Amino acid sequence: MNIQRLTSLRDFYKKQLLEDTIPFWFPRSIDWEYGGYLLMRDQDGSLIDDDKAVWIQGRAAWTLSTLVNTFGKNEMWLNGAKNGIDFLNKHCFDTDGQMFFHVTRQGEGIRKRRYYFSETFAVIAHAAYAKASGDESAAQKARELFGKCLQYATNPTLLPAKFTNTRPTRAIGVPMIMMNTAQQLRETIGDERCDVWIETWIQEIEQYFVKDDIRCVMESVALDGSIIEHIDGRTLNPGHAIEGAWFILHEARYRNNDPHLIELGCKMLDYMWERGWDKEHGGILYFRDVYDKPVQEYWQDMKFWWPHNETIIATLLAYLMTGNEKYAQWHQMVHNYAYQHFHDPINGEWFGYLHRDGSLAQTAKGNLFKGPFHLPRQEWYCYKILNDFLEKENKTSAVDF
Amino acid sequence: MNIQRLTSLRDFYKKQLLEDTIPFWFPRSIDWEYGGYLLMRDQDGSLIDDDKAVWIQGRAAWTLSTLVNTFGKNEMWLNGAKNGIDFLNKHCFDTDGQMFFHVTRQGEGIRKRRYYFSETFAVIAHAAYAKASGDESAAQKARELFGKCLQYATNPTLLPAKFTNTRPTRAIGVPMIMMNTAQQLRETIGDERCDVWIETWIQEIEQYFVKDDIRCVMESVALDGSIIEHIDGRTLNPGHAIEGAWFILHEARYRNNDPHLIELGCKMLDYMWERGWDKEHGGILYFRDVYDKPVQEYWQDMKFWWPHNETIIATLLAYLMTGNEKYAQWHQMVHNYAYQHFHDPINGEWFGYLHRDGSLAQTAKGNLFKGPFHLPRQEWYCYKILNDFLEKENKTSAVDF
Repeated sequence: MNIQRLTSLRDFYKKQLLEDTIPFWFPRSIDWEYGGYLLMRDQDGSLIDDDKAVWIQGRAAWTLSTLVNTFGKNEMWLNGAKNGIDFLNKHCFDTDGQMFFHVTRQGEGIRKRRYYFSETFAVIAHAAYAKASGDESAAQKARELFGKCLQYATNPTLLPAKFTNTRPTRAIGVPMIMMNTAQQLRETIGDERCDVWIETWIQEIEQYFVKDDIRCVMESVALDGSIIEHIDGRTLNPGHAIEGAWFILHEARYRNNDPHLIELGCKMLDYMWERGWDKEHGGILYFRDVYDKPVQEYWQDMKFWWPHNETIIATLLAYLMTGNEKYAQWHQMVHNYAYQHFHDPINGEWFGYLHRDGSLAQTAKGNLFKGPFHLPRQEWYCYKILNDFLEKENKTSAVDF
Repeated sequence: MNIQRLTSLRDFYKKQLLEDTIPFWFPRSIDWEYGGYLLMRDQDGSLIDDDKAVWIQGRAAWTLSTLVNTFGKNEMWLNGAKNGIDFLNKHCFDTDGQMFFHVTRQGEGIRKRRYYFSETFAVIAHAAYAKASGDESAAQKARELFGKCLQYATNPTLLPAKFTNTRPTRAIGVPMIMMNTAQQLRETIGDERCDVWIETWIQEIEQYFVKDDIRCVMESVALDGSIIEHIDGRTLNPGHAIEGAWFILHEARYRNNDPHLIELGCKMLDYMWERGWDKEHGGILYFRDVYDKPVQEYWQDMKFWWPHNETIIATLLAYLMTGNEKYAQWHQMVHNYAYQHFHDPINGEWFGYLHRDGSLAQTAKGNLFKGPFHLPRQEWYCYKILNDFLEKENKTSAVDF
């Protein structure tokens, strides 16, 4: 890609973020009456449900704070972020200290889950908000909650188990979410624990989940990293593994283009592009079986919005870090597929769920799992890495002159 | 439908059951080495996974026993049924008395769930096997387990809760599964508790879930029967409600064609045919929103095999009990759709999962949730009610002579 193309891509992502994606959600979703956000919305923005999904409450507060941290102060963004942070702290923790997964508009708990993703998203929300606002208590809370996540991650018996100990497994979700949480924490308010832990999680991913012999990133494995020859154990999530790839490329960039991490991130992307890209219809398939056997989950061949966000980031980052034109091509393929099929030119934002053939399966823009996160994060992150790249190019050119 | 058509339908279902569906599964799925059945199979019958789903272990033992009870003694069926019953008793109960949901081939527990469907399917398996074999200990076990299900059904605090008490709900699944379990128990080995309980559950369904004003059967409601205006509360499962309709029509038939129950069952079928039948592509849609808003579950517009089994039964039973030609037409529509789209003429049995447009989504014939149950039950039940109807017609004609 030449400088002109990179510049126009940078401007495209910024414009989409600020003039299409964010205006779909804000300010109308900020619930000034009860706190937090009203995010479960149909294609035209009408409210489907006034319940609040705790993951998405945290993610939305992160998004608003990150806008401030990137583009400068804006009252609506900052006050909106505070509205979410306050709601999380007032209503989203159960009396036992664990966070809820799903609460009512007023903040009464409906459901907890046997995971701690509510907590990880609360960490990044508090950290980004602390940076945006300078609020030291939010920074404290981010660090405290990160400590709690570390406890959950290293001591699985703290939460009720879904499975017996008959077939112990490792899931890639744990090192991945923790790595990204630590990266966010480090790069907003700083935390001395992060670097060592990030290195540990990357080693865990490389050692146990990345299979060079079969060119694959596993979603779960036995404790020793071997493939569990049952339906669940064979199930791959290409979009998720590709998200892991760009977390690692991000780390490579943070470490001054560490060549080993560039190689690791790129091969994870390569392996899962080969397995996830739908050669017949385009787009990233949701689940695949490592040996192409049938998958249990019913929506296995649907196209969801978020794997496309992750793949747009991963291919662009891989291209900018390696200059390999293959990644520029892949980036264009997934970018074009996604903005042609998911983007809603009438009301803004993206639809979430397509059939395999690219036709629309349903119209929700927000629900228990979709909200202002993957798409704005993609547009923000791509804008940022392109802008950094172009600024550096510019400086280099200036020196050359 | 004339007698000729009804006779040919009866013969079709019997032939499909005994020459197409059952031979796909048995004898090859009977695990003589470790007990139980190996049922997770791809389209050609090859094994995907040797784990055992406890629901399906019970259902398969019920199916084999029911074949004996319907078509007479057959060593493979009877020994196969015993193999499943023994595996359930030896391996599928945890030390706390609750049944597992998922075990290994050898019978080690992998997962329990916060439901008691493993138990209800174990009841019908033991009851049908007790009738087939004359084994009094199996009859005892069926009655004992039914008592346990009654405790779970009337005292939800016995199992861990998935939700808090913020928004208490009733789910139609409880009275439905319990009604059918009681019907099976009553009609195989007899149990004095059944009639009263069945009446209670029918009243619960009629009072709380059937909404004449909006022509709808709800899947879940508030304790007072009002509609819960949130995504989950609005979600309808037409195939499930239609299954409930035929359980009630079955009861009407048991009670000498009780006119009130015929009316109730038929209107449940009417309401949910209107909401579930896909006028564009044919087939029964999986989930619908009561107000046509987006549904949370991703596979909401897919076509699954089992709602078609339930609708084939319900429309045929409604036709035979009322003579209303509308039901004969619906029966033909759903029968033709299903046998054209789900049936695998090459390897036998049905595929489980189609896209909305009727194209195949994946090839599994058996997995954690699909096995030898809904399809053989449909073919068996339709054969039986047609055979009973034709025998009665025959007698009436003989008297007329």
